[in-house]
Amino acid sequence: MSTTSVLPKGVSKARFAEAVKAYRAIVGDAWVMVDLDRLRPYSRLMIPDQAENHAPSGAICPASVEEIQKVLAVSRQYRIPLWTISVGRNYGYGEAAPATPGQMVLDLKRMNRILEVDAELGTALVEPGVTFQQLADYIEEHKLPFWLNKPAPAPLVGPVGWTLERGMGYTRYQEAAQHFSGMEVVLADGSVVRTGMGGVANAKSWTAYRFGYGPQIDGLFMQSNLGIVTKMGIWLMKKPAATKTWVAGFRNFDDATLAVEVLRDLRLDGLIDNGFVMHMSYGVALTHKRADIYKGPGAVPDAMWAGIAKQMGAPLWSAAGTLYGTPEQIAVNQALVRAAMEKIGGLFMPEEAIQGPGTLMLNNIRMLTTNQLSLEDFAIFNYRGGGCAWVAPIIPAKAADAKRCMEIIQRVKAKHGFDFFGGFMAGFSGRHFDAASILLFDRDNPDELQRAKACYLELVDETAKAGYPVYRANTQAMDLTAKYFGTAQRQFNARLKQALDPLHILAPGKSGIA
Amino acid sequence: MSTTSVLPKGVSKARFAEAVKAYRAIVGDAWVMVDLDRLRPYSRLMIPDQAENHAPSGAICPASVEEIQKVLAVSRQYRIPLWTISVGRNYGYGEAAPATPGQMVLDLKRMNRILEVDAELGTALVEPGVTFQQLADYIEEHKLPFWLNKPAPAPLVGPVGWTLERGMGYTRYQEAAQHFSGMEVVLADGSVVRTGMGGVANAKSWTAYRFGYGPQIDGLFMQSNLGIVTKMGIWLMKKPAATKTWVAGFRNFDDATLAVEVLRDLRLDGLIDNGFVMHMSYGVALTHKRADIYKGPGAVPDAMWAGIAKQMGAPLWSAAGTLYGTPEQIAVNQALVRAAMEKIGGLFMPEEAIQGPGTLMLNNIRMLTTNQLSLEDFAIFNYRGGGCAWVAPIIPAKAADAKRCMEIIQRVKAKHGFDFFGGFMAGFSGRHFDAASILLFDRDNPDELQRAKACYLELVDETAKAGYPVYRANTQAMDLTAKYFGTAQRQFNARLKQALDPLHILAPGKSGIA
Repeated sequence: MSTTSVLPKGVSKARFAEAVKAYRAIVGDAWVMVDLDRLRPYSRLMIPDQAENHAPSGAICPASVEEIQKVLAVSRQYRIPLWTISVGRNYGYGEAAPATPGQMVLDLKRMNRILEVDAELGTALVEPGVTFQQLADYIEEHKLPFWLNKPAPAPLVGPVGWTLERGMGYTRYQEAAQHFSGMEVVLADGSVVRTGMGGVANAKSWTAYRFGYGPQIDGLFMQSNLGIVTKMGIWLMKKPAATKTWVAGFRNFDDATLAVEVLRDLRLDGLIDNGFVMHMSYGVALTHKRADIYKGPGAVPDAMWAGIAKQMGAPLWSAAGTLYGTPEQIAVNQALVRAAMEKIGGLFMPEEAIQGPGTLMLNNIRMLTTNQLSLEDFAIFNYRGGGCAWVAPIIPAKAADAKRCMEIIQRVKAKHGFDFFGGFMAGFSGRHFDAASILLFDRDNPDELQRAKACYLELVDETAKAGYPVYRANTQAMDLTAKYFGTAQRQFNARLKQALDPLHILAPGKSGIA
Repeated sequence: MSTTSVLPKGVSKARFAEAVKAYRAIVGDAWVMVDLDRLRPYSRLMIPDQAENHAPSGAICPASVEEIQKVLAVSRQYRIPLWTISVGRNYGYGEAAPATPGQMVLDLKRMNRILEVDAELGTALVEPGVTFQQLADYIEEHKLPFWLNKPAPAPLVGPVGWTLERGMGYTRYQEAAQHFSGMEVVLADGSVVRTGMGGVANAKSWTAYRFGYGPQIDGLFMQSNLGIVTKMGIWLMKKPAATKTWVAGFRNFDDATLAVEVLRDLRLDGLIDNGFVMHMSYGVALTHKRADIYKGPGAVPDAMWAGIAKQMGAPLWSAAGTLYGTPEQIAVNQALVRAAMEKIGGLFMPEEAIQGPGTLMLNNIRMLTTNQLSLEDFAIFNYRGGGCAWVAPIIPAKAADAKRCMEIIQRVKAKHGFDFFGGFMAGFSGRHFDAASILLFDRDNPDELQRAKACYLELVDETAKAGYPVYRANTQAMDLTAKYFGTAQRQFNARLKQALDPLHILAPGKSGIA
């Protein structure tokens, strides 16, 4: 077995050694890694793909914009591609490893300063290496009245990378891509551009007003390889006076799809800020190992989930959410949510009425929708051996589409022997939902890895062909996913790439941009 | 006086005649205008600049994407620039006329189909020529439970152009640029790209989910000349169960600037959807001609506004807004708004308590914030002779910045002899406000036109230098405004322009992109 990493495409061993020397002269010897042992954090995968398809040539950890500019110069000279990560824990989407083998991972973890928190405006200007935990600690230390919008693995990941990938949170702010203002970006040629008001000398509103003047360019750097984002203005959610989490149980899937429309209408009415519709299997997977509940062939059958639900006294499908505001506001709004859910046959349970097994789901939703940073959601990885891929097709907020898309997910997963774990998450305007499902599998079992891979690719393919493409793809399906968005978009992106990074130094393969 | 229009730069009379013939062969003789009489709608100005600086060479009205593609081919062949307008009534920002003389106005008014209204999702896919009135009529005819987010001159203007210019509305949705999904764009080379989910065959969420996969490109076509937008998915606001408009009076400017911070905090709490802070002069201008209230030199003095206010029994400064929801929600929320306003010395008046002269302002705010389409705001143009320019610098939502920026506006306007009309409008997240003011002047008085021009340019300059650049500039100050956003942004935009429109066919001068 080789102890040296894979070489960048078209770069000789000698030239690569020269480049590494040049990189080391910039960031210091310790911050350029090329031996396999030290590259392990950058090559470890949870997604269902062979590690060699994503093997990095090395990793570089610059400490500043100036170092990034110098690293870019070396990369341009030697034609060595750079795969940028911020905190590098893109769980279930490819983690820290590049889309294609033979790239240097540009790890921005050392750029982890909280540059400015504006306690009046509720904004934080941060570097890419900042984690949610770090930001939460800062807020606590300074006793600021703000919460963080965040993903489930918040303590370990960071707001910049998460926002750039268009992560979906659970609080009032949910859609990360709608809740930031201001980026600093280093382009492939080393030039630096600050978006929006950031270009103004003496700017007062960089983190407050996103658009600036003329075309809005910050969107170009999201899910993309057109630049390296080195600063971002994250919006902090004002701490509410109170919260109340609610759950409404449904007898069957058809009724639960109606909840998608009810949540949509409540969202359009401005009454709720978040809303979820979930199958109980996810809750079970948080607290059980698969081997303890099912030993049969194929996926856990529907009837068995129903049986477990009955035994637990939990509904097979639930809608849930958290209301924010003063107690008076919450009381008025909860009555309206309750009436809407009961109208479609939902068994409405306010937070204080939930006891017994139902508290598991309640606690999980409450943890995600309030300001608790917890790793409890990580328990999901114990269910079936650590392999993980998220599949989250976008559907319009209609019951028929919810049903059709989720049936595809369930059918394809069952075909390949993987358990269901389906749910819907209201998008930021209520007009779309993420029809999300997690594919859990044993990465150490080569046969299962192969089956999971086939399953993932088929899920991406079948949902897209039905008109419900995923909003985010893991590194093994980026090209595939981009294809469903048509040649016109691909050609347009290629023109941007050609204009901004003609040598293709930045993250080849990212989002299928070539 | 010449009866023929100005020629495009570098195009001979003979070549231009050839091109006009070619354009006519595409769209029909009647839809290509080059004689001055017929060009009047495209050369008429309200902004304080000489008409010759914006004289069009002609106008073309295509009826379809295919015709636009053919028009582009002719323009590329003859190097004739096209200044695109949708409805073409960009009042106070340059109206229908191009930024620089010698462009053909590409008037999309014939492309005025409402292509699809999704009554479940609350979205309307429309062409650029559609007006708010047309959409309102459609909604009424089909008895749909939706309202329109719209600017003051809504009956005459359209959602596509308004959204592309990042117009600010008054309802729940306010910031137009945050409330749409999906564009179809024709590029300078004639290729067509649909943004977001629009690229997906069998797409279900084009008008519901904006981002699609990979970089977000729709922002590139806003306030820009990188493409011609031919379709757009506009979000309709759900009709609320009830509304209540409120007003809070303040004794002086300093107290009123505190209202900016209170509105910010209420917005961050998710409690209000809109908020305004206004000087009473705007209300007076809606109902008076200047000559009837003031005959002295220079701007109407402060003391006189205070006197008029006293005489009317109206506050000099007010905050105002409209609450939406069920009567119960409104009651709870209004109590919170009232408490917050009273805490800073505001005299809070709920809708039903307002009588006498105060109803003027109440009615105006209610008209703007609810679903009434009215031309009553047009009365403002009778105040002083029809000339008009909007100046709306962006400020962070802080009292000190509100004060500083508004003092610049008042000082510069007074210096040139123009009346105040200042106010603040909460931005969509509450973190920024538009510090807006309307410059009203007599366009038929050459001296006053010159003074208004000097005043406008000085307003744009002084506010930008203080860190508060305008969010939108009229056609005489596009280059100037772009300059304040720095060379990095300008160079970036120039690279995009080079990649997408290397012959500079599309709207030279727009937003200073060159």
